[in-house]
Amino acid sequence: RDASAVQTAIARNEQLTKPKGSLGQLEDLGFWYAGWRGDGRPSLERPQVVIFAGNHGIAARGVSAFPPEVTVQMVANFRAGGAAINQLSRVAGAAMSVVELDLDRPTADFTKAPAMTEAELVAALAAGWEAVDDDADLLVVGEMGIGNTTAAAAVAAGLFGGSAADWTGCGTGVVGDALAGKTRVVAEGLALHAEHLADPVEVLRRLGGRELAAMAGAILRARAGRIPVILDGFICTASAAVLARIAPHALDHAVAGHVSAEGAHRALLDRLGKEPLLNLGLRLGEATGAVLAIGVLRGALACLSGMATFAEAGVSKG
Amino acid sequence: RDASAVQTAIARNEQLTKPKGSLGQLEDLGFWYAGWRGDGRPSLERPQVVIFAGNHGIAARGVSAFPPEVTVQMVANFRAGGAAINQLSRVAGAAMSVVELDLDRPTADFTKAPAMTEAELVAALAAGWEAVDDDADLLVVGEMGIGNTTAAAAVAAGLFGGSAADWTGCGTGVVGDALAGKTRVVAEGLALHAEHLADPVEVLRRLGGRELAAMAGAILRARAGRIPVILDGFICTASAAVLARIAPHALDHAVAGHVSAEGAHRALLDRLGKEPLLNLGLRLGEATGAVLAIGVLRGALACLSGMATFAEAGVSKG
Repeated sequence: RDASAVQTAIARNEQLTKPKGSLGQLEDLGFWYAGWRGDGRPSLERPQVVIFAGNHGIAARGVSAFPPEVTVQMVANFRAGGAAINQLSRVAGAAMSVVELDLDRPTADFTKAPAMTEAELVAALAAGWEAVDDDADLLVVGEMGIGNTTAAAAVAAGLFGGSAADWTGCGTGVVGDALAGKTRVVAEGLALHAEHLADPVEVLRRLGGRELAAMAGAILRARAGRIPVILDGFICTASAAVLARIAPHALDHAVAGHVSAEGAHRALLDRLGKEPLLNLGLRLGEATGAVLAIGVLRGALACLSGMATFAEAGVSKG
Repeated sequence: RDASAVQTAIARNEQLTKPKGSLGQLEDLGFWYAGWRGDGRPSLERPQVVIFAGNHGIAARGVSAFPPEVTVQMVANFRAGGAAINQLSRVAGAAMSVVELDLDRPTADFTKAPAMTEAELVAALAAGWEAVDDDADLLVVGEMGIGNTTAAAAVAAGLFGGSAADWTGCGTGVVGDALAGKTRVVAEGLALHAEHLADPVEVLRRLGGRELAAMAGAILRARAGRIPVILDGFICTASAAVLARIAPHALDHAVAGHVSAEGAHRALLDRLGKEPLLNLGLRLGEATGAVLAIGVLRGALACLSGMATFAEAGVSKG
């Protein structure tokens, strides 16, 4: 982070024609972005949205309201422009792409074996790393993968402890007995891999999935390239949390775009010390909440970089 | 409201390629907008932002951190494109205009007399009414007026009861003794006009100000023209509340864009039964929070009207 760009942005903000602090969280958002871009008067020109799609062995256990073939069907929908994230990316002025991760080879059922081999994990991390455009000035990653709130719940529990029930939620709309079954699947996974959960990378490999690993790889690449990141919902945040458990400041270049309706998302954000920008009851994934938050970031930067100062406008400072 | 357009929108939403309800508040926002526009698959093409500026007799009582000449200086800043709302309107793709309301003639100090005569009130209401573009498909009104959180606090207390302290907040940054003084000014106004507060229009005339009246006039005109409204912060909401106290459903065509950092805004929204879309700690006025929320509405409508259905996309419905 460029402390001098942050100082420039703070000094400029003090001179802008508004009461001090009156833009609230927008002001902090501007300073954060200025610091990571190394520019005290920054603009947002090339936001990138990448959706990673993966399939999950545990989908066969009935953990989702949708059948596993929906993952590949939704990838086609993303390509055809028909999904929610297509519409929201267009509104946000963001380039969107989709990366399919071996959809014909689901991960292993994590109640029976590690979800991924080491080679599979590395391939997925690399796919994420490689998907990031070095010229982007903002990265948003999202996911599609029937069964992946189950994997994310297992990863969150593996990283932070607590019971399967603490982290397992309704996902696409799983309630009652089905939710109890989903929770049992998470508990079985945690029990099987209990000896290996001290290492966050092993948590990701054993309980996660390809799209979770890819999101972590992309967020890491963004850090290396000083590309700020807006985090999406529960699954994205669980992926990102793997990085934070490896290095406490690994997510300083990321803000939380929203808190979703998935029950444990707020708790996960709290563990990461992230205050969400939006709270609109979304529970769709696909980066939808994070991409909506791009509009808030655009507003923050437009004010920081575009407003007149008291001196320029001839306004009394009070 | 067009119930058949709402039904069309609800039926379409059920078929879109996402889990049921997974777009949370965006879905309700889409139905609301569809109903008021009479279009089950609506788009947002011509949002209008109008800022009304007025001066206040009570500004001479030291209720603001800024001197009263800042009102006219900020109007010049709006015209020159240097204020926060200029930047945010540009980001939101909204046309913005400013209406000055007799800035050289502040309202009367409401601790000594009614803020406005009947003729002044009518002129301000009419100015608001006339400022609305019939071709707009969304209206946002905002305000600029040194001293107007004091007027808004008095109006809120006049409409809903409670003490001056319940409704008086920091405004542009008034704390300590100055806040105590501001609260006393509100209490004096409430005491002077106590016999006349049963009539919401009298509350507005005696304790409000020209820009508050103009916002109410504009919101009413929008209702007549079936133009949906996004409410801004405390002052805008206090103006709108006058209408709600006259007719309980007068604000059905309006949603709350945000809850501001002005202490009593949440309480005022609660009285109106409005859940805010955003909560970003803004306390600037100028319609800034409402205009930020246009981005959320754009996202909601883009999803409702632009997404593919399960059948169109060949996605299994689960």
